[in-house]
Amino acid sequence: MNRQILLMEYPKGVPTEGTFQLVETSVPSLEEGQLLVKTLYLSVDPYMRSRMSTAKSYVEPFELYKVLQGGVVGEVMESKNGKFAAGDVVVGMLGWQDYSVSDGKALHKINPDLAPISTALHVVGMTGMTAYFGLLDIGKPQAGETVVVSGAAGAVGSTVGQIAKIYGCHVVGIAGGREKCSYLTDELGFDAAIDYKETENLLKSLREACPNGVDVYFDNVGGDITDAVILHLNQFARIPICGQISAYNATEIDKGPRNFVHLLKTSSLAKGFIVNDYAHRTKEAMTQLGQWVLEGRIKYRESIVEGLENAPQAFLGLFSGENTGKMLVQVAERTRSRT
Amino acid sequence: MNRQILLMEYPKGVPTEGTFQLVETSVPSLEEGQLLVKTLYLSVDPYMRSRMSTAKSYVEPFELYKVLQGGVVGEVMESKNGKFAAGDVVVGMLGWQDYSVSDGKALHKINPDLAPISTALHVVGMTGMTAYFGLLDIGKPQAGETVVVSGAAGAVGSTVGQIAKIYGCHVVGIAGGREKCSYLTDELGFDAAIDYKETENLLKSLREACPNGVDVYFDNVGGDITDAVILHLNQFARIPICGQISAYNATEIDKGPRNFVHLLKTSSLAKGFIVNDYAHRTKEAMTQLGQWVLEGRIKYRESIVEGLENAPQAFLGLFSGENTGKMLVQVAERTRSRT
Repeated sequence: MNRQILLMEYPKGVPTEGTFQLVETSVPSLEEGQLLVKTLYLSVDPYMRSRMSTAKSYVEPFELYKVLQGGVVGEVMESKNGKFAAGDVVVGMLGWQDYSVSDGKALHKINPDLAPISTALHVVGMTGMTAYFGLLDIGKPQAGETVVVSGAAGAVGSTVGQIAKIYGCHVVGIAGGREKCSYLTDELGFDAAIDYKETENLLKSLREACPNGVDVYFDNVGGDITDAVILHLNQFARIPICGQISAYNATEIDKGPRNFVHLLKTSSLAKGFIVNDYAHRTKEAMTQLGQWVLEGRIKYRESIVEGLENAPQAFLGLFSGENTGKMLVQVAERTRSRT
Repeated sequence: MNRQILLMEYPKGVPTEGTFQLVETSVPSLEEGQLLVKTLYLSVDPYMRSRMSTAKSYVEPFELYKVLQGGVVGEVMESKNGKFAAGDVVVGMLGWQDYSVSDGKALHKINPDLAPISTALHVVGMTGMTAYFGLLDIGKPQAGETVVVSGAAGAVGSTVGQIAKIYGCHVVGIAGGREKCSYLTDELGFDAAIDYKETENLLKSLREACPNGVDVYFDNVGGDITDAVILHLNQFARIPICGQISAYNATEIDKGPRNFVHLLKTSSLAKGFIVNDYAHRTKEAMTQLGQWVLEGRIKYRESIVEGLENAPQAFLGLFSGENTGKMLVQVAERTRSRT
């Protein structure tokens, strides 16, 4: 039997239980080139809300009355594809269901001897790789340099700071709230954290936290926070632009101080990116991140809800702030181990 | 005899003839490690005005009653420095005088078999190298790509466009005035020129001139023009930030649409630079630029005034718009040829 969760409507406002429906179908059979994947973990993410709508977006809408799609860690149960074998653990975009059929093209194998396999949906997966590629490929941190990260307590930001510590940098996080800031310094080993909601003078706080200026600024937020950090750039600084949340909800064109002047004065670099720009380096990044997690050099938080039937609730919980760390749904246990 | 031009005052407003004085001294003798350079060409440049002042600036003020300094192409007459020999033609910052003594550290040799030696003060010198490094090292133009350059009729911009043509790009210049635009397309081989003073809709003009979008934007100006070009960036575009003249005279913080959002959406790169960032590659750039000028692939304009005694007038002429192209003073003829 294959249970599936379907999208029943494009909700107005916050989705409700009626937005989803659980149905039971049979486990599909395979054609040549395909493989059958048993779902172990599902990822529920805020961005999925924008796919439950036909409004213009950078992602396609989910289809009504079809299985919802999202990040899945699964186990290959049967394979008619030479690149995968039964027992392989894989990660990719699959359905909210017990079993998915795939042609394997968008799946990546996970090494289960490194980090826990659930982490392939966050710190060893997309968010971890976003931190990894942005920081290392664009930021190019050198030992002794100062790295500032905004949105520092988020999934990407917290990994950025920990990788920068591995590289021997002085790491400063900017986050909102005392609790988040303590988490950064006390649990994740950041050298300093600035609570942008509490500080009376962000420029002064930055000057104190970054006595040698800023060499790398990993930008998750844009807006006023970015304006302030840019005034502290050292010569030849690097800015990976990962997110600009301050602009996402702007209803008119968001204006701010022109920042190219500061890039010019300091011969600094700014570059936007998304993790897909580095798709060809997925294996390298997942292996390195898995190793760091296994060694305890990168820490993370996850909240796990049990049972496919509870996936809608887990998703709705994202909007009421019930999770600390990455929200996952565990659908099944691994049945086989590789020999 | 060594004639010298001294700075006699820090002028208020536009300098006058009384700002300068010509004096006669004897030709200095050399110590070990030094060389004697006969001035062939002097460069007069607008930035020198800011050195005739004690106001805070990015350059140090000239000293009163001392010889003025500027870019010079000269001939080595005598050398007690193993790196230079009599007959060498060199370029560097030297005095407004017939003969200068140098330790050779800031001098570069010119190959007089390539472009005319006067071009080492512009298209084969600082402005040419600014175009060369910014375009090639940051812009990385590929054949078939679209390169847009603002301030396109200036010394840097006109060279940028011509190098981009050598690299097989579709080249669009933005400049102010019909005459400048005709110069770009009719004399320098740009594919299109946009007169920003005349166009009714810069966005539309850009769309028409760049049907395949913009891959490289060489930014000399910043401000509204840059805001418009950024809306046309292709995926993975590159922006060498060379100048932001729109901001130089701003009396309050210059605001504009936040541009990091667009760099993020297109995974584009922006990087500030100055030519000194590439000082270690001076020889490579001067050789390549000299070769291109010799081959007629890079064209330029220069205005030459004869005689050291006319250097002050040539300098003052910059502020009344008397020059077309680079303004130079020819002080002497070369006396020797290398064997």
